[in-house]
Amino acid sequence: MAFQAPATMQIQAQANLSGPQVVPKFTGMRRLPVAAIQRDKYKQLPEAFKGIKQIGFIGWGSQAPAQAQNMRESLAEAGMSDVKVAVGLRKGSSSMEEARACGFSESDGTLGEVYDVVSKSDFVILLISDAAQAGLYQRILAAMKPRATLGLSHGFLLGVMRNDGVDFRDDVNVVLVAPKGMGPSVRRLYEQGKSVNGAGINASFAVHQDVTGNAADIAVGWAIAVGAPFAFGTTLESEYKSDIYGERCILLGAVHGMIEGLFRRYTRQGMSEEEAFRQSAESITGPISQTISKEGMVALYNKLDEAGKKVFREAYTASFGPALDVCFEIYEDVASGNEIKSVVQAGKRFDRFPMGKIDQTHTWQVGAQVRAKRVEEDIPLNPFTAGVYVATMMATVQVLREKGHPYSEICNESIIEAVDSLNPYMHARGVAFMVDNCSYTARLGSRKWAPRFDYILEQQAYVAIDNKQPLDEGIFQTFLQDDVHKALATCSEMRPAVDISVGGDNSNEGVGVGGARTEYRSAVAAVA
Amino acid sequence: MAFQAPATMQIQAQANLSGPQVVPKFTGMRRLPVAAIQRDKYKQLPEAFKGIKQIGFIGWGSQAPAQAQNMRESLAEAGMSDVKVAVGLRKGSSSMEEARACGFSESDGTLGEVYDVVSKSDFVILLISDAAQAGLYQRILAAMKPRATLGLSHGFLLGVMRNDGVDFRDDVNVVLVAPKGMGPSVRRLYEQGKSVNGAGINASFAVHQDVTGNAADIAVGWAIAVGAPFAFGTTLESEYKSDIYGERCILLGAVHGMIEGLFRRYTRQGMSEEEAFRQSAESITGPISQTISKEGMVALYNKLDEAGKKVFREAYTASFGPALDVCFEIYEDVASGNEIKSVVQAGKRFDRFPMGKIDQTHTWQVGAQVRAKRVEEDIPLNPFTAGVYVATMMATVQVLREKGHPYSEICNESIIEAVDSLNPYMHARGVAFMVDNCSYTARLGSRKWAPRFDYILEQQAYVAIDNKQPLDEGIFQTFLQDDVHKALATCSEMRPAVDISVGGDNSNEGVGVGGARTEYRSAVAAVA
Repeated sequence: MAFQAPATMQIQAQANLSGPQVVPKFTGMRRLPVAAIQRDKYKQLPEAFKGIKQIGFIGWGSQAPAQAQNMRESLAEAGMSDVKVAVGLRKGSSSMEEARACGFSESDGTLGEVYDVVSKSDFVILLISDAAQAGLYQRILAAMKPRATLGLSHGFLLGVMRNDGVDFRDDVNVVLVAPKGMGPSVRRLYEQGKSVNGAGINASFAVHQDVTGNAADIAVGWAIAVGAPFAFGTTLESEYKSDIYGERCILLGAVHGMIEGLFRRYTRQGMSEEEAFRQSAESITGPISQTISKEGMVALYNKLDEAGKKVFREAYTASFGPALDVCFEIYEDVASGNEIKSVVQAGKRFDRFPMGKIDQTHTWQVGAQVRAKRVEEDIPLNPFTAGVYVATMMATVQVLREKGHPYSEICNESIIEAVDSLNPYMHARGVAFMVDNCSYTARLGSRKWAPRFDYILEQQAYVAIDNKQPLDEGIFQTFLQDDVHKALATCSEMRPAVDISVGGDNSNEGVGVGGARTEYRSAVAAVA
Repeated sequence: MAFQAPATMQIQAQANLSGPQVVPKFTGMRRLPVAAIQRDKYKQLPEAFKGIKQIGFIGWGSQAPAQAQNMRESLAEAGMSDVKVAVGLRKGSSSMEEARACGFSESDGTLGEVYDVVSKSDFVILLISDAAQAGLYQRILAAMKPRATLGLSHGFLLGVMRNDGVDFRDDVNVVLVAPKGMGPSVRRLYEQGKSVNGAGINASFAVHQDVTGNAADIAVGWAIAVGAPFAFGTTLESEYKSDIYGERCILLGAVHGMIEGLFRRYTRQGMSEEEAFRQSAESITGPISQTISKEGMVALYNKLDEAGKKVFREAYTASFGPALDVCFEIYEDVASGNEIKSVVQAGKRFDRFPMGKIDQTHTWQVGAQVRAKRVEEDIPLNPFTAGVYVATMMATVQVLREKGHPYSEICNESIIEAVDSLNPYMHARGVAFMVDNCSYTARLGSRKWAPRFDYILEQQAYVAIDNKQPLDEGIFQTFLQDDVHKALATCSEMRPAVDISVGGDNSNEGVGVGGARTEYRSAVAAVA
């Protein structure tokens, strides 16, 4: 039984709930603390999780440390300490130590072997890597209790099962809650939410199979418990397509490649390397992201003087088409199952080819020097960089729209996740701190597509500008009048009440065991 | 009935021929003209093509102008002017004019509409673009006479049909002759072969279905007639995997990306831009390619002084692993059907997203200036460039070997095609003249994977060298002792008797209607 997300603008959670409701209404000044919203809903968790005595989180990658800790703390706050939150890892996993440091332990039964935890849990939240899911899903499904609930934070597994030609067993619930940010953001904003109520990260949710009749309650309860101030309905299919696509485009891949190309361009034009980094990477992760987050994309353009507006328009107009070309290629490679197949294949090669580092190159060494001297208020808003960035963001939007995704998903997967959740990590410690705190699927995809965006922008967009080729002004007019601005404004009313705060190169804020990593895993065990 | 290529070293054509034989023996000094070999075989063509009254070439892309002209001239030389060589194009095709300029005409029935030519031909050689084949193969197969022969120059269609879950109709022969070079090379070396006997381009051949009992004769006759001095047996599957893979790796994609990265590296190290281009692109297309072609890869290393050898060893050792990582990714994306599916999808987007230019960027503008001043003898052999290039070539070799391809195919798809057929085009007029005279499948793949090689080499190989990370010397020892050097030496005895000669920026040699293009097609019609 599939839960259908309406295909039109869909901003509010649509589940037919008997218990909890996700109330997405923030009021007042957006940068100030607002009234408690989400935490008020904890009292509805007992009804949402009726009959659930153990919730098992399987894995310890990007999402699991965040979600397991948030869930445990939310249940405690809701007076549900009798519901056991357990973590399941393969025997001998090097993650055991981290899980223990976060308070999970063998002695009280909150830390155990994967299949043991699966078989004892009423709600199994499967957060091992996508590639590992592809290899193990049959055993995990087989180990589940009848009428238990399988929770996924990504529809990836559905894509794998379609490639394999198989279905979920029909006697379990299958639900999804997909936080619109990497695990460390999910944890960090939840922590911040303890002093600033309402903070947390948006999520999508879906009900794919409902055998108990209350699967939607369980899904929305899960969203609330891990800290989502706002959740929107989707389907597993719509989620995996938009998610795998988005991270390859503006969320991770495109922004990385764009910075490499802009840095190269600006140094060639005579800027010092540090200045080139400030005018490209710093500009994006600083004022460009902040403005889009708080005021939207058109506001960014309107902040520029006339000369700056002209540069933005040219950069936008020349970049939109080439970026759209690659975005279409990526979407169709995701939708056809190609990218999922590639990720599964890469997972099988990890022992021989662990993922390498991406931030030891010259660009990012310069970046570390720039960050050390940073004065936040002095970061420039470069109009050329802004034009290229917004064009690529709009290209990401455009493909999702043409492919029929709802605006709630479009705004989150193309814009909000970028500026509210991911770019702040690049701002703090560089590109790897953003990319490599995400899932393996995201890390692989970013490595694959970042350079492609870099090349096509240089080969087509920048060449067109430098050669003064005539540009189609209609492209920019279309941008100004795009409906997405209205949708984003509505979504923005539900953004986290505070900006995410992550420690920079010399800080430990939000970094460490159970939070963001600074040493990234280079290979994946079967169950990490 | 599939023809199985032996999986071991296989240098000589293996078809069980009643008629023509491909004699792959050159003697004497390799750089001097040698005795006529291949043209002696024309007298066997009447027997090979017994019963064939019309040969129809369908399409006018990279291969068709070359093969149709070569075939017509070979048949004339064999006294077979009664066999009609016709070209089939869609009505209103813009290629009609070019075909007429090459002597094909509606009035004598040698130029016509696709399905008309297909239905009248005893031997249909299908050379429309891969993406167009994917869309039209069912109609084309349906239009063929029973017991006619379908000729392919690429196994791509088999990959498409596997993705579609269908087979060839069982009452036609299906054979393959795949020249190991783009169409313009096939034409250019054939033309040169008129004054220097034995010149021509190596090909592979396969018999996939033999309903008439003489399909192998037809295949080898075809190889001879289009100018192959040497043909080796393969299968459609082995051909499409190695071909689609090879062009994404060292043949096109990797060499392009590598040059961009090396150019950037050398300018950052303080070289002038022109010098950086000489030490990267010029070095590869000049002395590095020439040495590998005539003397092999180890000889290239041995030409260096002790300091140069050390630089080569370091560059090789640091680059091999990262290059191998991407080569594996590409091979598995080809073998799984992903790349074929992507190409078919891209073909459907061409109307909206025609392929853009790749050589208008700064690197290649500098390149044009360098070529204008070139003194061939002064092109440097840069040891770092050589180490990176050979490492990536060996990575290309290594994956094909692990995946079970025979050495004949490995040497041609990883080494010979690069240095004898493709790099000379980049040498003449830059990267687009090489890449964009190839098939759409190759052009798309090169655009997709070139930047990926660039990034991984910079992120992993060059960083390792610059940070003086310990390198595994065993990698280089393995290179020195690799069996591929022996296989290549054997293959090299069968290389074309002359170097390919292509006109540079201000020459028309081998360029123009029916030869290499300088204005590349940016979109593909259903039947180009």
